[in-house]
Amino acid sequence: MPSFRLTVAYDGTGLVGWQRQATGVSVQALLEGAASEIDGRPIAVTGAGRTDAGVHALGQVASLSVTREIDAPALQRALNAHLPAAVRVVDAQAADPAFHARFDATSKTYRYHVWNGEVVPPFLRAFTWHVPSPLLDVRRMDSAARLLEGRHDFAAFQSLGTDVVSSTRTLLGSRVRRVTIGDLDGVTAGLSAAAGSLLVYEVSGDGFLRHMVRAIVGTLVDIGRRRHEPHWVLDLMASGDRSQAGETVPALGLCLVCVRYGSLA
Amino acid sequence: MPSFRLTVAYDGTGLVGWQRQATGVSVQALLEGAASEIDGRPIAVTGAGRTDAGVHALGQVASLSVTREIDAPALQRALNAHLPAAVRVVDAQAADPAFHARFDATSKTYRYHVWNGEVVPPFLRAFTWHVPSPLLDVRRMDSAARLLEGRHDFAAFQSLGTDVVSSTRTLLGSRVRRVTIGDLDGVTAGLSAAAGSLLVYEVSGDGFLRHMVRAIVGTLVDIGRRRHEPHWVLDLMASGDRSQAGETVPALGLCLVCVRYGSLA
Repeated sequence: MPSFRLTVAYDGTGLVGWQRQATGVSVQALLEGAASEIDGRPIAVTGAGRTDAGVHALGQVASLSVTREIDAPALQRALNAHLPAAVRVVDAQAADPAFHARFDATSKTYRYHVWNGEVVPPFLRAFTWHVPSPLLDVRRMDSAARLLEGRHDFAAFQSLGTDVVSSTRTLLGSRVRRVTIGDLDGVTAGLSAAAGSLLVYEVSGDGFLRHMVRAIVGTLVDIGRRRHEPHWVLDLMASGDRSQAGETVPALGLCLVCVRYGSLA
Repeated sequence: MPSFRLTVAYDGTGLVGWQRQATGVSVQALLEGAASEIDGRPIAVTGAGRTDAGVHALGQVASLSVTREIDAPALQRALNAHLPAAVRVVDAQAADPAFHARFDATSKTYRYHVWNGEVVPPFLRAFTWHVPSPLLDVRRMDSAARLLEGRHDFAAFQSLGTDVVSSTRTLLGSRVRRVTIGDLDGVTAGLSAAAGSLLVYEVSGDGFLRHMVRAIVGTLVDIGRRRHEPHWVLDLMASGDRSQAGETVPALGLCLVCVRYGSLA
């Protein structure tokens, strides 16, 4: 049984997320459908992270085994031929049959994009959450974000109704920055007047609780609005009380950037 | 009658282009509808360039006069409140009542985006034309593009069935480059493996014939595929024969970047 590790990018707009669901089209169902058509029998596809409805990915990782003899480039081409343009297999590698995209993952990186200007460029409207005003204080947001780095109990940033053994996770990096609009502005970002309006929160960790990144961003934006001091995040973590932290911000700004395997750097 | 100069960005996907048409939704109709609602009576909006169906804009310019006393920032906000997110007024300035977005324009800049790699990132699929292979020779394409700079008869790059007095135009710049994927890759471009796959043709001129940019790009891509030498474009211009030049490439890769007024630089 040839086994593979796929790297998958998707525009999550209109999708119900990674995981197969009765309520709509999921990335998993699209990939399993494509793989099953290619293989002629039902194929299961496992994803590294269960991205929520509307969340995007640049580097989701998925594992699967097929029964046909096929090499990785041919599988990649065949999958892309069966998938909609919103979902692309950007890389495929032969993998050990024991490889499991979810259990073997050692860290993941997410980015959350905030458009902090009056007018969202049409080309970014599906990928950024709009906070028209006030001008967010990125330095304060970044100070708060850095306080989350390390091993902590993130219960205060976990959606209610979830059931995990432990809410302790390790964040390897947690930073906020303003993005300078570069060479791609012709495609994506609009006029130079808009430069500096895009804020990116980038976070890497060994695992994430349900809605954790979006609850952190809601909290950081409250700090950026000067409603709280950066060290508020320490009080929140100590409290473990979700109701005190910021709102869970919309899915459309979130993107799973990459998944790492092997020892933590 | 307060008059204004608007700068308008739009994602042309699914639109019939700038100009009002019975067959679908146009940018002009959306802007006129929004302005008329704000003013309480029918308002005409004039665009600098009549972009075709599916063509995008970062900096289309439009002129209009209203009867209500309103300042430019308030008009911009009101228009955006009435427009779909795919169309945004990114700037509004008070203008002389005699200002005419089309007749007063002295030059325009367009970009055409080609994705020259096997897999188009989902986030760029609406804005790039896909040429999966071969790897295009950008140096040859750029050499050919530069031969078009200056004052020439562009009849060979004009769609048949158009009726203009003269097909002579002056191109101020005509260049092809590979775009390095910068800081926005998180939103837009996919994994770093894809870097270098985006080619951009940027052209500025005092005027453009119907489908001219798209016919030039079809010709440059033929040169990039090594079907012709760069100096082929000189033969084409001398022939004035549209049937000898390259195909008219798809609208989705084209973007009106900006419109200039005043003396030619």
